[in-house]
Amino acid sequence: MSVLSESEIKEQVFMMGKQARAAALKLASLTTSQKNEILKAMALSLRAATSEIVAANKKDLSAGEVKGLSAAMLDRLRLDSERVEQIAAGVEQVSLLEDPVGEILSEWDRPNGLRFEQLRVPIGVIGIIYESRPNVTSDAAVLCLKSGNATILRGGSEAIHSNRAIASALQSGGEPAGLPAHSIQLIPFTDRASVKVMAEMDQYLDLIIPRGGKGLIETVVSLARMPVIKHYDGICHTYVDSEADLEMAVAIANDAKTQKPSVCNALETLLVHESVAAAFFEKAIPVFAQKEVEWRADKRAQQYLPHSVPAVEEDWHTEYLDYVLSVKVVDHLQEAIDHINHYSSKHSECIVSQNKVTAETFMSSIDSACLFHNVSTRFSDGEEFGFGAEIGISTDKLHARGPMALRELTSYQYRIRGEGQIKGK
Amino acid sequence: MSVLSESEIKEQVFMMGKQARAAALKLASLTTSQKNEILKAMALSLRAATSEIVAANKKDLSAGEVKGLSAAMLDRLRLDSERVEQIAAGVEQVSLLEDPVGEILSEWDRPNGLRFEQLRVPIGVIGIIYESRPNVTSDAAVLCLKSGNATILRGGSEAIHSNRAIASALQSGGEPAGLPAHSIQLIPFTDRASVKVMAEMDQYLDLIIPRGGKGLIETVVSLARMPVIKHYDGICHTYVDSEADLEMAVAIANDAKTQKPSVCNALETLLVHESVAAAFFEKAIPVFAQKEVEWRADKRAQQYLPHSVPAVEEDWHTEYLDYVLSVKVVDHLQEAIDHINHYSSKHSECIVSQNKVTAETFMSSIDSACLFHNVSTRFSDGEEFGFGAEIGISTDKLHARGPMALRELTSYQYRIRGEGQIKGK
Repeated sequence: MSVLSESEIKEQVFMMGKQARAAALKLASLTTSQKNEILKAMALSLRAATSEIVAANKKDLSAGEVKGLSAAMLDRLRLDSERVEQIAAGVEQVSLLEDPVGEILSEWDRPNGLRFEQLRVPIGVIGIIYESRPNVTSDAAVLCLKSGNATILRGGSEAIHSNRAIASALQSGGEPAGLPAHSIQLIPFTDRASVKVMAEMDQYLDLIIPRGGKGLIETVVSLARMPVIKHYDGICHTYVDSEADLEMAVAIANDAKTQKPSVCNALETLLVHESVAAAFFEKAIPVFAQKEVEWRADKRAQQYLPHSVPAVEEDWHTEYLDYVLSVKVVDHLQEAIDHINHYSSKHSECIVSQNKVTAETFMSSIDSACLFHNVSTRFSDGEEFGFGAEIGISTDKLHARGPMALRELTSYQYRIRGEGQIKGK
Repeated sequence: MSVLSESEIKEQVFMMGKQARAAALKLASLTTSQKNEILKAMALSLRAATSEIVAANKKDLSAGEVKGLSAAMLDRLRLDSERVEQIAAGVEQVSLLEDPVGEILSEWDRPNGLRFEQLRVPIGVIGIIYESRPNVTSDAAVLCLKSGNATILRGGSEAIHSNRAIASALQSGGEPAGLPAHSIQLIPFTDRASVKVMAEMDQYLDLIIPRGGKGLIETVVSLARMPVIKHYDGICHTYVDSEADLEMAVAIANDAKTQKPSVCNALETLLVHESVAAAFFEKAIPVFAQKEVEWRADKRAQQYLPHSVPAVEEDWHTEYLDYVLSVKVVDHLQEAIDHINHYSSKHSECIVSQNKVTAETFMSSIDSACLFHNVSTRFSDGEEFGFGAEIGISTDKLHARGPMALRELTSYQYRIRGEGQIKGK
């Protein structure tokens, strides 16, 4: 922790905001090739700084051990030369992505001769508030840079030395290649007050993206005066319809639950049509048993699942992120739709059915970001969408919904050209 | 004022939120022609309720006179049969606009056979918090309805009787024509606590649009947990370039300042290149004198404007909304750009120049919603853009920027179709 007072923190963070605003105006006018040259120079600089970054990370790891961080948290925090190489390769990868800035979104003329153009422009200054993983420092900053935005990064205290070393490598590599000063700034201290100050400075920050646990997101949502794009839970559902191919249904549900249960697009609640329940569970039980999945079953599902735990109301609201699955037998499609619209976190849902009309009814009746027909919800991911990168998955409905990549880091502007048109007369 | 306690207000408003969420799911699946039939029925119902609406409005006007509202405020509040007819005609007009819901925004395939579709869907439930004008009750509700959204309306106390009468006519006309119950709800009391409660219920409200003075907007921005799309100031600039057609420049500046000075797209600060300042002001002085425009001039502009008032720092930050204009002479294009980027509210700016390269540099260097070349900023308006209607002009950069109409009241959803794809193996 630093020894700064709250007013000193405010002064420093506001100064960073002002500098970021100035940098953003310069960034907005860089060409795609200028930005790509900067990114390539940053990747080289990260590689050249590998030993400094790993050494800084050792300080964080030692402090984390003293603090008693769990083995899983220490692993998330750890950087070795291979992981630094992955971060650098990620920066190069972003240099290969299409630049969204300048894309013409629409063009039209009006009878009075005015010519309208709507085109993509950067958002401006984006604040990223994140927790332990130090790779976010680079991943988030370079996606913002490619889309023409300045960033103010505020990482967690556990990774502060690693974050500083990474940010420093990005800046020192980027600036000789043309990166405007203050395009990427890391708040050098991790006092909680800095989050509050960021949330207040809406004259300098156009958007905050919090990446971390629910506590962090709640804090940012409560305090922020500017837009926040966030990711709450991923309570994803799969519905096995009466006309499902049951082999496919078992494979999809098993993949969605067990292929990587710790992620937001993993399955949490399975809904099964009563007419196929017996046959489905007969096939599913041995498959799920291989990963020792715990079933939390409603009354009717319990009939088919002798080793299940009775589900309680809380289960339908729970993102387990583990080898646990809540399961309910439903009478008809509408019951599945109603259950999902009531309990879902509006992230991703799947229907397994050979009946296309049923599938279309399901997809057009549910208010979630991503709806899948005969596809595992594990495909709800920027890479799988073909976006080439992902800054997060939004469970909001404004501006960006679902997987967010470069386009979602842009705004737009209207340019209107005429020959002296006036409104009067 | 009502006699409800804060907890009673919370209970009632949360119940309205829950009902709106249920209505939104039904609204999302209405077809365009169903929505249009509902709108036409609402217009008829408004016309049939003219005498009730005018009588309710008389109560508001009497209360307003007792309260000592200004003549301008009383005029904004006033409804006669002609104004009710305008409101009804506005509803019919919305029935003729294109429905944005269901539009395919993009479609693509991936090598693994997944087919992606991104399509427009309604946002869900939109809260509108507004002040005196009772026509907003209808205008906002029907734009939200056409775009498939439920609304919770919270009008000002001055117009409560008028708002109730209008909302009641919309509901009673719409429901027999198929409007789902609770699609349009007016909060029946005007306690300040209801704004606070709306700002907190992010499980039920997807978006709040505050329409009114800066105080109201500040309150909503500070309290809201959900996205807010707002309109702060319109501090609009016009820059007269060294290569301007000066007749055109005078006509554009005069139109932008005096054709309707009380609106957000009116001109507030004029910037003039020093090489044309003498000639420009010679032509401009008599034209602006016709409307007795007060000039607030920087030192150099004072040389050309003998009857001007010296501009102070505050002037560059001021939205006069009156026959007052701040004016500054600049040495070059970049000085104009820098001034605008520093002082503008990012609404609308204009350059007058015969040089297209200069104009393009201006437009690509300024971070505002709408940039005009040789066009009065008074065209910064949904109607003039050809949107057919406008729910407001956003000075934000996320989700919606500039004039907002039906498209800006939508979100999107991804639908992904496959044949059993799973991520594992």
